[in-house]
Amino acid sequence: MSTALIILAAGQGTRMKSDLPKVLHQVAGAPLLVHAMKAGAALAPDRTVIVAGHGAEAVTEAAQDYDGDAQIALQSEQKGTAHAVAQAAPLLGGYDGDALVLYGDTPFIQPETLAHMAKAREQHDIVVLGFEAVDPGRYGRLKMTSEALEKIVEFKDADESERAITFCNSGVIAAPAPLLFSLISEIDNNNASGEYYLTDIVALARKRGLSATAVACDESETMGVNSRAELAVAEAAFQTHARATALADGITLTAPETVHFAYDTVIGRDTVIEPNVVFGPGVTIESGARIRAFSHLEGCHVSRGAVVGPYARLRPGAELAEDTRIGNFVEIKNAVIDAGAKVNHLSYIGDAHLGEATNVGAGTITCNYDGVMKHHTEIGRNAFIGSNTMLVAPVSIGDEAMTASGSVITRDVPDGALAIARGEQTIKPGMARKLFDILKSKKAKRDKGAG
Amino acid sequence: MSTALIILAAGQGTRMKSDLPKVLHQVAGAPLLVHAMKAGAALAPDRTVIVAGHGAEAVTEAAQDYDGDAQIALQSEQKGTAHAVAQAAPLLGGYDGDALVLYGDTPFIQPETLAHMAKAREQHDIVVLGFEAVDPGRYGRLKMTSEALEKIVEFKDADESERAITFCNSGVIAAPAPLLFSLISEIDNNNASGEYYLTDIVALARKRGLSATAVACDESETMGVNSRAELAVAEAAFQTHARATALADGITLTAPETVHFAYDTVIGRDTVIEPNVVFGPGVTIESGARIRAFSHLEGCHVSRGAVVGPYARLRPGAELAEDTRIGNFVEIKNAVIDAGAKVNHLSYIGDAHLGEATNVGAGTITCNYDGVMKHHTEIGRNAFIGSNTMLVAPVSIGDEAMTASGSVITRDVPDGALAIARGEQTIKPGMARKLFDILKSKKAKRDKGAG
Amino acid sequence: MSTALIILAAGQGTRMKSDLPKVLHQVAGAPLLVHAMKAGAALAPDRTVIVAGHGAEAVTEAAQDYDGDAQIALQSEQKGTAHAVAQAAPLLGGYDGDALVLYGDTPFIQPETLAHMAKAREQHDIVVLGFEAVDPGRYGRLKMTSEALEKIVEFKDADESERAITFCNSGVIAAPAPLLFSLISEIDNNNASGEYYLTDIVALARKRGLSATAVACDESETMGVNSRAELAVAEAAFQTHARATALADGITLTAPETVHFAYDTVIGRDTVIEPNVVFGPGVTIESGARIRAFSHLEGCHVSRGAVVGPYARLRPGAELAEDTRIGNFVEIKNAVIDAGAKVNHLSYIGDAHLGEATNVGAGTITCNYDGVMKHHTEIGRNAFIGSNTMLVAPVSIGDEAMTASGSVITRDVPDGALAIARGEQTIKPGMARKLFDILKSKKAKRDKGAG
Repeated sequence: MSTALIILAAGQGTRMKSDLPKVLHQVAGAPLLVHAMKAGAALAPDRTVIVAGHGAEAVTEAAQDYDGDAQIALQSEQKGTAHAVAQAAPLLGGYDGDALVLYGDTPFIQPETLAHMAKAREQHDIVVLGFEAVDPGRYGRLKMTSEALEKIVEFKDADESERAITFCNSGVIAAPAPLLFSLISEIDNNNASGEYYLTDIVALARKRGLSATAVACDESETMGVNSRAELAVAEAAFQTHARATALADGITLTAPETVHFAYDTVIGRDTVIEPNVVFGPGVTIESGARIRAFSHLEGCHVSRGAVVGPYARLRPGAELAEDTRIGNFVEIKNAVIDAGAKVNHLSYIGDAHLGEATNVGAGTITCNYDGVMKHHTEIGRNAFIGSNTMLVAPVSIGDEAMTASGSVITRDVPDGALAIARGEQTIKPGMARKLFDILKSKKAKRDKGAG
Repeated sequence: MSTALIILAAGQGTRMKSDLPKVLHQVAGAPLLVHAMKAGAALAPDRTVIVAGHGAEAVTEAAQDYDGDAQIALQSEQKGTAHAVAQAAPLLGGYDGDALVLYGDTPFIQPETLAHMAKAREQHDIVVLGFEAVDPGRYGRLKMTSEALEKIVEFKDADESERAITFCNSGVIAAPAPLLFSLISEIDNNNASGEYYLTDIVALARKRGLSATAVACDESETMGVNSRAELAVAEAAFQTHARATALADGITLTAPETVHFAYDTVIGRDTVIEPNVVFGPGVTIESGARIRAFSHLEGCHVSRGAVVGPYARLRPGAELAEDTRIGNFVEIKNAVIDAGAKVNHLSYIGDAHLGEATNVGAGTITCNYDGVMKHHTEIGRNAFIGSNTMLVAPVSIGDEAMTASGSVITRDVPDGALAIARGEQTIKPGMARKLFDILKSKKAKRDKGAG
Repeated sequence: MSTALIILAAGQGTRMKSDLPKVLHQVAGAPLLVHAMKAGAALAPDRTVIVAGHGAEAVTEAAQDYDGDAQIALQSEQKGTAHAVAQAAPLLGGYDGDALVLYGDTPFIQPETLAHMAKAREQHDIVVLGFEAVDPGRYGRLKMTSEALEKIVEFKDADESERAITFCNSGVIAAPAPLLFSLISEIDNNNASGEYYLTDIVALARKRGLSATAVACDESETMGVNSRAELAVAEAAFQTHARATALADGITLTAPETVHFAYDTVIGRDTVIEPNVVFGPGVTIESGARIRAFSHLEGCHVSRGAVVGPYARLRPGAELAEDTRIGNFVEIKNAVIDAGAKVNHLSYIGDAHLGEATNVGAGTITCNYDGVMKHHTEIGRNAFIGSNTMLVAPVSIGDEAMTASGSVITRDVPDGALAIARGEQTIKPGMARKLFDILKSKKAKRDKGAG
């Protein structure tokens, strides 16, 4: 069935106590809104309309960053969910497929659930997503007669028998777009809040003799985020699920509760993740790698047999070939590290290419920034970069070339050549003892002056 | 009501298995004793007397470090709580305000609870702090008749009906100081342990026809620390509360359970704290900063818009102005970093001032210590410190000045000047290959010799 | 009683989804197999036979790495536990002590439990290890009459009354070796799986009129590992126990749940371990040390009063004497650090010896690797190594010697001498401003070209 998504993302989220619009707060490295868009994307929608309000500019940017074709409808005043959906109508004028209403602050609706809704739509005009609530509290209740949804009863309007119902309304709803907008146009705001409620369309549809039903999902899918505490709970829920999935996929997590995945982390079988590893977005790891403790990875690729960390930071554009070694206190950014190359200690490699089996000594830095622009460093195969070599980019080091420890390399080094750029060593006998004596006597004077 | 605190802090804490006196073990970066002093400080006491015994010297230092006016009473032998309080009598001779007895190993009594006690003192001669115990176990029971506290019954002396009481004694007690000491002087040690129990004052007061009552607090406030396991439980309780408070205040904690606060951490709204961040004492962070994963902060100030980490360590005296960036494997100590300045990689900046928008290259070190004394480094605005620059303090770098990568700067650099201090680059064609060959042949010989 | 261990370690562990044999997956830094061998080692066995199958070569290596005398029996096809044990028979031909059958994927059997079994063997021919199961599920049931074990009933063969039994079979079994092999030779594979079950020996023994009994252990000891999730649960169980033990021993763990021990970590009383510390194998720490946050230790020794971290990495062969200080972003490998010496910032010290009270400046690197071989660096007492000194090994620095910041030291420095090896500082007035202008104009051109 062809579908247009309408994602409500206009709320400020007062309880977040934030200048950031609620739907832009992140779970697993992506805004809540992107999680909702991702869920909806499983239906391969024809169109996606985001209804933005508070912080509309930032919301637009985030939405289009994820999906360049997403359209934005502005809801300048917040007058209820039906009013919000109505703002999408002009953008969907003439669209006669289905409309599916999702929420930008509800990140965990599963693709299977939306598939169930789509299937139910084949039999019914309106399909609402419900869930069996452990504690129904003040949720709206879904009053069913067999598989027919009679009405959605708001908690405050519910009588005792209705309050006993535990099947609750998630707010997610699917209907033919023209029908949806037509029903919405009949909704009034004669209620305590003076708002237009999307839930009213069920009763209106039934009046017209149309059929409605509800499909059930797990309560965890409907988790909404309204405060920082709920954001933390959502993050924890995501991580719990991601960790269990990784273990089931044949990945070792020594201490699963200390590994933090991003929404798009991909890891191959037989990779070992030690304690305290953080993944930002955009990481892929092949089978049989090892990510050691205290590592931080983002926007990078790690190949089979590579060992990363402890205390390694891989930043966007880091690409590690097979059997590479990135060691402690090393930062790699926008750099391709060929097979078997090693950067084991205290180094910064940025905007660079390292050839196969090259060894980079401790304290090496690619000086890629001149204060205005970034430049590239090229290093060949089987090269040996001595400890504390400064590679002042743009610069290249040939295959099987060598730099002496402590050298500042500003000119290219040919294949097989040795480059040295450092001062000669002078030894001044007895001078250290003299210096210590002088410094101690200075200090004594200073301390006396201070006393 | 004017109040003197008497804080009992003489115990060794045998179950701690420690050379350190029990009350000096820390929760959230402060000794247990300081937590108790802080709780009592909410009453703005006239006087604070710490009753010290085991490790009295260290206890005195810790107490006076927190409150220079705190007085120390020595209890050379541990003969019970009444005996401990009695040691404070000489220091409070003639004091006619209230005395409030607190415990140095009970860190979580809340200010509101002490305010309730003070209010109850307006109606009663003696006020005891009690709590409804989930599992009353061997706690002393508070026997109440309406709001009158009849007596405190030790568990071992309690009959069946008394053991059924769930309202238990915390040990915290308030009374007019002269009354307290007068009652204590009547307490005897005719009991199994041969100790003088402070709890006996209630019965003695009732005999005199005086009134006593008990005020209830939450059981969690009365948590005492007697072992390392209990210390860890107390720390966890503190952290759970601090994390919930931070979330409620509009701070994002991606993984709250991995963030460790100190007792005095202050963080503004809309700051984001990534996983695995540790706060030592003395940290303030303004709104809208970001503290990235694996950062460690102590005694520092971070301003709005600053980004710290991952893997950044801010030590005491680090002051970060707005929009500064402190990156990975960077240590900042006793240094003021002006707005927009950046220290992104592998650097040590200590005893320094960095001007606005200055960029410090990777591997830069302020050589602040000459083996005897520490010296200052001054860097101007819009300066560019090349990678791996050694700034041998005392030294100053001017506004818009530049240092070349790998330079050792020992003399001041004027505004707008470029300083270079490094060797010239020499290239020896083919020499790297020769060296590799020589080294390999040496190794082969060595391995043969070893074989 | 003299005992031979037979440890079954032939399974592939399909549910692990791994190329690594199941018993080589690690808990607390040691393969599961080693945990089982360690448990059995408490009996001081005469002989240890590992029955290997999948990945036998790697299993052999791991087993003999832990115990050079361990013998390997190959089980080329997996035909059940009795068949596996039978493979050990040729290696134990003529051995007339006891045989104890353990499992390579069951790491937590306690020494006390094996002692109970040995004691029970004094009265009975066969001793089986059982446990009271919280949820007996599909475990085999131990049918007891008083202390006699009548038979082991497989779940699928059990009638209702047998299924009600909660005393279950762990699989661990002890019997005289000749008897064990004799009984096994009678076992058939007339069952649904076509396998030979070791459990059948109980019924066969009873038929011969021999006596069998079962000894109970805690269910947690019998935890087996069949998936990555179970591996993580086993790791967590180990850590929970190790943390509780450390607290009970008088060690402070600020946040116990963030400290990860190895199977052999030894820590003295009054040591403080801050949050987020990871121990690899082979670490011993004396009393009163402090391990700060984010530290990683492996194969090292830390003495009384030493302070390690935050962000310190101690690798195999690091030996820290009393009152040493290893600070942030410092890696120590195969190096002896004498009393009072300090390496506080951003350094790599490998294959070295530092004398007493020597101070190593920030950014110092022992250049121990020449691309082919490793070399040693020797530093004397009270030396002062200036920041960013490169120590090109082999090299020695004398007592009370000094190196200037940024020096590359290639030749030995005598006692009391100062070594300098760096370029002279040149200042080019106005040059920085000119350079910035040139770079900005270049960038403008480039950006224009790109536009």
